[in-house]
Amino acid sequence: MIGSTVLGLDVGGSSVKYRLASAGQADGMPDAIAEGVAPALAEELPATLAELARTVSAGHRLAAVAVAIPGLVDEASGTVIRSSNVPALDGRALGPELSALLGVPVSILNDGRAAAVAEARWGAGAGERDVFTLALGTGIAGSHLVDGVIADGAHGSAGELGHVVVEPGGRLCSCGQRGCLETLLGAPALRRAWNAAGGEGSARELLAAYDEDDPRAVPIVRTAAQHLADAVLTLLALVDPGVVVVGGGLASAPHRLVELAAGYVAEQATFHRVPPIVPAELGRWAGAVGTAAEARALAARVVAA
Amino acid sequence: MIGSTVLGLDVGGSSVKYRLASAGQADGMPDAIAEGVAPALAEELPATLAELARTVSAGHRLAAVAVAIPGLVDEASGTVIRSSNVPALDGRALGPELSALLGVPVSILNDGRAAAVAEARWGAGAGERDVFTLALGTGIAGSHLVDGVIADGAHGSAGELGHVVVEPGGRLCSCGQRGCLETLLGAPALRRAWNAAGGEGSARELLAAYDEDDPRAVPIVRTAAQHLADAVLTLLALVDPGVVVVGGGLASAPHRLVELAAGYVAEQATFHRVPPIVPAELGRWAGAVGTAAEARALAARVVAA
Ligand SMILES: [Zn+2]
Ligand SMILES: [Zn+2]
Repeated sequence: MIGSTVLGLDVGGSSVKYRLASAGQADGMPDAIAEGVAPALAEELPATLAELARTVSAGHRLAAVAVAIPGLVDEASGTVIRSSNVPALDGRALGPELSALLGVPVSILNDGRAAAVAEARWGAGAGERDVFTLALGTGIAGSHLVDGVIADGAHGSAGELGHVVVEPGGRLCSCGQRGCLETLLGAPALRRAWNAAGGEGSARELLAAYDEDDPRAVPIVRTAAQHLADAVLTLLALVDPGVVVVGGGLASAPHRLVELAAGYVAEQATFHRVPPIVPAELGRWAGAVGTAAEARALAARVVAA
Repeated sequence: MIGSTVLGLDVGGSSVKYRLASAGQADGMPDAIAEGVAPALAEELPATLAELARTVSAGHRLAAVAVAIPGLVDEASGTVIRSSNVPALDGRALGPELSALLGVPVSILNDGRAAAVAEARWGAGAGERDVFTLALGTGIAGSHLVDGVIADGAHGSAGELGHVVVEPGGRLCSCGQRGCLETLLGAPALRRAWNAAGGEGSARELLAAYDEDDPRAVPIVRTAAQHLADAVLTLLALVDPGVVVVGGGLASAPHRLVELAAGYVAEQATFHRVPPIVPAELGRWAGAVGTAAEARALAARVVAA
């Protein structure tokens, strides 16, 4: 496959990140031959993705493509089951459609899973066999990876740290339970607490105000970090990972939530084996890197078959 | 190895359960050629265990022995690190000592792990790839098994469902945290609640009184089952097992705690994939069965080497 390339497309609500990489690389991180961001035109998505793939790979022999979608996908059939950010894709057989347009095999996967695999293998989890990744944003997603592969349980739904109850009887969560971590630490919860304290803007402004020692922001961020620490202590008791990697918008530099939570966990752990609790390293490119890796694996499978 | 036998010894505080099985069996449950209970004389334990092994295996060719201990063991060196029920064993190189006395290889393992493997492979978890076992007694032990092997995390300490906090700020636990499941559902906690309500005796009497609709017992048992359900919902969110097997003294027939907790989980689950939550099947022999299986695996390794 030397000379061939693979393409990872990480589709978001308003843009597509892409990474073109060599198909012939070994197990390392798929280095970018080309990388960038293109607009996503939801109505015409299969056609615009095919066009983007042709443009990006012009002059290269393209062996396989993988597409990461924010939502629930059926990887076996390449179908998007439900995508809240890109509803035009709901129910579409995106994999087969794109494959027909491009004449190469196409895999479809979940964007969070793609990012988790990349962070575990080549980001902040590199070198550790047993990794738990967290993405803190509007929702909170978790993935447990062993040897670079997601250990997703008997029904594919393990790792839901966002829906661990840390405040019994607390606020109603989107999942139907009360007091899930997500009701206390998701971006909407932080915004609500910040606005109630007289702060302007969103969770991002709250975190910026915390960094300026705004007395309205400090207790809110500390409380949120304590809730995260509570959930992480439960994670350590049940899963005992070798490293916890925290990414997503609420964990971006200067990583205050991560630092605070790591400190609380270290203080409050008793029998637990406390692993490093560290910020993600690949940032918003993690999904594109993981998707390029999936495309590379797909190309290898096609050659082997 | 046809004709050879292996012996599993499950050492408790006052007795030793044993199972002699064929070394030549395949992967199935190690059938008992002989099985029983002998007194444990703690002071002379290596010598009495060797004597027991000789007596039980008389007339058979013994290929390997495995010994399960209630406590922390170093499997690699065959050393008992700490055993609260059999303190005479603390720090002893029981494996090498017994091996010298018997002239066969000897493995040492933790009794709860031996029982968990047996329940997962040949008890209530049989046929399911992804099993979580719980033992409810004085403490609460948990093990996550995938394909019959314990998935014990990066530091060997995964599965501690007893030390998941279900009542933040609650009673101080032996582990140093507050409000762990064990502080609400362990046998001492149930006895305390039962005695405070005017009941006589221990958790066993509480469960018997529940079965007779004793109005002092009913709310205590229901509350305990609700706490167990809360912890199991957290387990389903994080680990997503294919079956949850509940054993130990507090879960013995008629299994009221298990039934109640399974009902609460079914009612209160939201996004969770609810697996069967069922009583253990091998009962107090699970440890001996798992230990015999370990002895069989040891014999096979010795032959292969
Ligand atoms: Zn929730
Ligand atoms: Zn505890």
